[in-house]
This record gives sequence, C-alpha cells and structure tokens, in this order.
Amino acid sequence: MERYVIGIDLGGSKMAAALADGQGRVLAEERRPTPVEAGAEGVLSALAELVEDLLRAQNLTERDLSAVGLGIPGMIDRERGLCLFSPNLFWRNVDVAGFWRERFSCRLVVDNDVRLGAVAEAEWGAGRGARDLIFVALGTGIGSGLILGGEVYRGSRGLAGEIGHITVSRDGPVCNCGNHGCLEVYAAGPAIARRAQEAMASEPESLLWRLAGGDKEKVTAELVSLAADQGDELAQRIWEETGEYLGIGLASVATLLNPERIVVGGGVAQAGEKLFRPLVRTLKARAMTAPGLTYPVLPAALGSAAGVRGAVAAALKL
Amino acid sequence: MERYVIGIDLGGSKMAAALADGQGRVLAEERRPTPVEAGAEGVLSALAELVEDLLRAQNLTERDLSAVGLGIPGMIDRERGLCLFSPNLFWRNVDVAGFWRERFSCRLVVDNDVRLGAVAEAEWGAGRGARDLIFVALGTGIGSGLILGGEVYRGSRGLAGEIGHITVSRDGPVCNCGNHGCLEVYAAGPAIARRAQEAMASEPESLLWRLAGGDKEKVTAELVSLAADQGDELAQRIWEETGEYLGIGLASVATLLNPERIVVGGGVAQAGEKLFRPLVRTLKARAMTAPGLTYPVLPAALGSAAGVRGAVAAALKL
Repeated sequence: MERYVIGIDLGGSKMAAALADGQGRVLAEERRPTPVEAGAEGVLSALAELVEDLLRAQNLTERDLSAVGLGIPGMIDRERGLCLFSPNLFWRNVDVAGFWRERFSCRLVVDNDVRLGAVAEAEWGAGRGARDLIFVALGTGIGSGLILGGEVYRGSRGLAGEIGHITVSRDGPVCNCGNHGCLEVYAAGPAIARRAQEAMASEPESLLWRLAGGDKEKVTAELVSLAADQGDELAQRIWEETGEYLGIGLASVATLLNPERIVVGGGVAQAGEKLFRPLVRTLKARAMTAPGLTYPVLPAALGSAAGVRGAVAAALKL
Repeated sequence: MERYVIGIDLGGSKMAAALADGQGRVLAEERRPTPVEAGAEGVLSALAELVEDLLRAQNLTERDLSAVGLGIPGMIDRERGLCLFSPNLFWRNVDVAGFWRERFSCRLVVDNDVRLGAVAEAEWGAGRGARDLIFVALGTGIGSGLILGGEVYRGSRGLAGEIGHITVSRDGPVCNCGNHGCLEVYAAGPAIARRAQEAMASEPESLLWRLAGGDKEKVTAELVSLAADQGDELAQRIWEETGEYLGIGLASVATLLNPERIVVGGGVAQAGEKLFRPLVRTLKARAMTAPGLTYPVLPAALGSAAGVRGAVAAALKL
C-alpha cells in the first residue's frame, strides 16, 4: 500500500500544505490564511482541518499517511514537539505535539521553518549537491539554516542559525533582541523600509513619496524595490547598502564556516540583482580568501515553496 | 606488541613533541627551538631528528610507532599532507607528507594547530563532554577550532574556524587579511600592544612607560598584562576593551552556532580574569538568548600542551 506524507509551512499570515507520495512528489497543495487572532488552539484546529481537507480531496484517510512535517517560524523543541516562542504567531510554549496526538494518530515532526527551507533547498533547490551550505532567508526577520557535512546543524539547544542577530556594526541601532548593530536591524524587510523612510525626509523628489501616496509610513521593502527598478536613486542607494550589510554578515559566516555555497531566499531576496550585486562584491572583499577559494551566492530556487517542501522532506525522513 | 604514537606541535618559535602509548598516555616530551631561518627543508629535518631522538631515548625504533600527528600554524590540505600557507613559518605549498615519506615509513597526519588544540581540549581539557564546542586560541593571531556534533568541523576546504577574521566593527582598522574591523585587529597580542602604544602617547604617567624602559615600541601584550596587575589604569582599560571586542565576536559565533561551551586558550588568555570578566559580560549582553540558555566560557585547561596533545589524539585516530 502506497503511503503519503503531508508537509505544512505555518506562517504568520498564511499556512501552506502539500500532500506528497513516498518519493516526495507533490500531488496536491493548499494555501489558507492563518487565523492568528484565534490563538494557538484556533490556529492548530485550522491546521488540522487543512490536513483533513487535503486528504479528503484525494480520497485518502489518515491511515494513508505515514507522517506529517510542520515548519513554524520560531524556537522549537523538536524532541518534545513544542513551540517555545514564535514572535510572528504570538506563541509561547505551545504544545503542538500534544494537540496533534488528540486529533491524529500518525507521527508529526515539528521544526523551525528556515531550517526546513534549508533542507528543501539542499535536497531539491539551489543547494543540491553541496555538503556545506548556508541558506539565508530574508524577510520580516533574517534567519538561516546551516547544512554542515550534509546534515542540518542545530547546535546544543536547537537554536543554531540565528544569523540575523550577529553583529555587523559594534555601535549600531538597538535590535529587538537587545543587542546593538545586528544584521537584522539593517537588512530585514522592516529595516529596509525604515532606512528608506529616514532618507526620504531630506529627499522630497524621491519617487518613493509618490509611490507611498505622500505617506512615509506606507513605505515597505517591496515599494523600495519598485522605486529602485523605476530608477529612483534614493531607493537604489538603499539596496546598495542593504547588499553591503548582508555581505559583511555573510563574510563573517563564510570565514567562520567555509561553506561550499550560500543560498539566499525569502521575500526580500526577490529584489534580485540590485541586492545580490553589492552583496557578492562585499562578500568577496571581506571573506577570508585562499587560492582558488570563492563563495558562490545563489538565489533560492524554490521560492515560497521551500518551507512546505522542507516539511515534506522532514516527514519523509521520520 | 605495544604500539606508540608521537604528537608534534610545530610553532613559529618552538617545536614540541610527545611520545604516547596506545591509550594516549604521554611517556616522554621534548621541546626545541624551531630553526625557521633554515627554511622548510631545515625545519622538517630538525623535526625528523626530534622524532628520532625521542624514540632513541625510550629504546624504541620507528617500527614501534603506529603514527605521527603534526600540528602546523597555517592552512593545511590534510588529504595531501601539504601546508598551503603558514605566515608564522613563512611557508607556502610545502609538501610535508612527501618529505616525511622519504625519511619514515609510518603514517603521518598533518593538521592545523588550533584544530588539534580544540580536539585536545574536547578530549582531555576544559571541553570534556561537550558535543558542540568553540575553542578559541588567542595569540599572535586569533584562530578557533569548531567541534560540532562531537567532531571537528572543517568546512568545504578545511578552512573553517577563522574566527580572527570575522567583522566586529564595520569601519574598523584594516587587517592583514584585507578586511576591515576584524576581531584580530583588536584582540590579538600585537593588536593589544598597538592599542596600548596608541593610548600611551597621551598618558605620560602610565606605568607602561616605565615597564617598557621609556620605549613605546617595547610594549607587548604581556607587558600590558603586567602593568594592569600592578594597578595601571590605562593597561586595565585596554584589557577591558579587549574583553569587550572578544565578547562581541564570540556573541556572533554563539548566536550562529549555539554551542554548549566556549573554551578560550592561547598566550593572551593568560591575562586571566581581567580579560574574561568583560568578555563574559559582553557575551551575555549580546548573544541571542532563550530561557535557561547561557554560554559558559572556560579557560583552556591544557595550556601550551594542547597542540601536542591534539596531535597525539590525531595520530591515535589514524
């Protein structure tokens, strides 16, 4: 009897799920809004429904499932299936595995969403074939998944990969985490918007004013990308600097871990060449070198599907 | 028949060797100056003599040896037994394994000295029992050995661990490596001396002037340590800042790798509490935290013997 798996990527605004066969081939997908306001119970119920609907649509039942993989943006205790903390979902110590056992009998693996994204990129995406790989996800925050020696490296408490909170400038602005000058306060989506907003004050001619309808607060990283593509100099400068900050951070990581490849994904990476060009230039200038050593930087290949695909991979490995 | 191993730590000024039994118990040790000026051939010949003398003194011959481990301060190609580059020895592309095969028939493993130090601290020193361990060696340069998941992590080209060249301040002074604001330009021995020399100009009352016989150029990190212990405020400030820089760098590494423990060794670490106190305070303030998570920082336990002991461990594992 053929057995299936389901992979789920639970985000702060959307939850996406995919049903796959034993070879990881995706047979059906589904995407719904995350009812964050309903609290952890409400979100987990919605997630259970999503699983049941996916099965029903394929004329399958839970007995056809071998396992489910679930990616959550936050700190996860994998052993116990707990979400210790998720700022995006406003969760603290949510017993995901406990909830699951009350509704389902098939096995569940819970993991951090970026770690799962790294697994997916390594298995099917831009990281294929690399044993030592850094996958960086640029979004509301900046996270990473470290594939070292062909395996996800998790560290002593499962928290390895928090690249958004390494220092790139000793006396930089204060970060949510309490530290100063973290990579995230320069190069995450909200930081890009904030830096653009600060620069707009002295540049009334910037296209950003028009695109934001005259309201500085409406500026987002996406809008800064749009403005840059339409030739706005302020916006182009913001991307140039963002790439430099990322290059500084990634140079430290590359110098420390000597990876084979670096894969950059997440919503902010959609900015493309105007971000990657200064990033690669700075990385090259700053990372420790050796004859013939380069650090190839590739855009992620799986886009927003990386989380779901990684959850499928995790379920298959259970 | 009992088989023995020899571990050698080849430094820029001294070479140390130890003969050990199959359980890693050290039976004899020997230390000699490194004849750097004699070039690679000369150094390797001196090293061969050291091995032969060690054996002879124990009434052993090469046939009693199962393997030899050799630590070199530099970039090593372990597979081929080459030293690609060693600034301390002034070596470039030295075929250590080739030289060895002409004189000896027993197996040789060549590795970076700090990686071997990490292995020794993990096996017999302050890192015992930790699966995820950062060993930092503070000396003329700053290097590290990363024990991840119980094994030395080497990266794609064997260069992982170059913690001295991660950025701690975006616009800091230029480093030998070409980057700006590397940890090494603030906290390695020569950097400590340089920072003290710069500060002395405006503090004619500093004890350092007297200790250096009125010649600023004579100030070394060791002298700055002595002055601080005798109550000199300038010197104490230098150590305070050095600890802070190291804390910034180690906070980035801890946030990225989530180790169980950090072990700090090398000559500069002899400064003790006046270095460790600000280091630990800064690490605590800057590393990403989670409930119950701390990063214990321990002084290395094996001192200058770590390199030799690690070379013994490497030979035993061959």
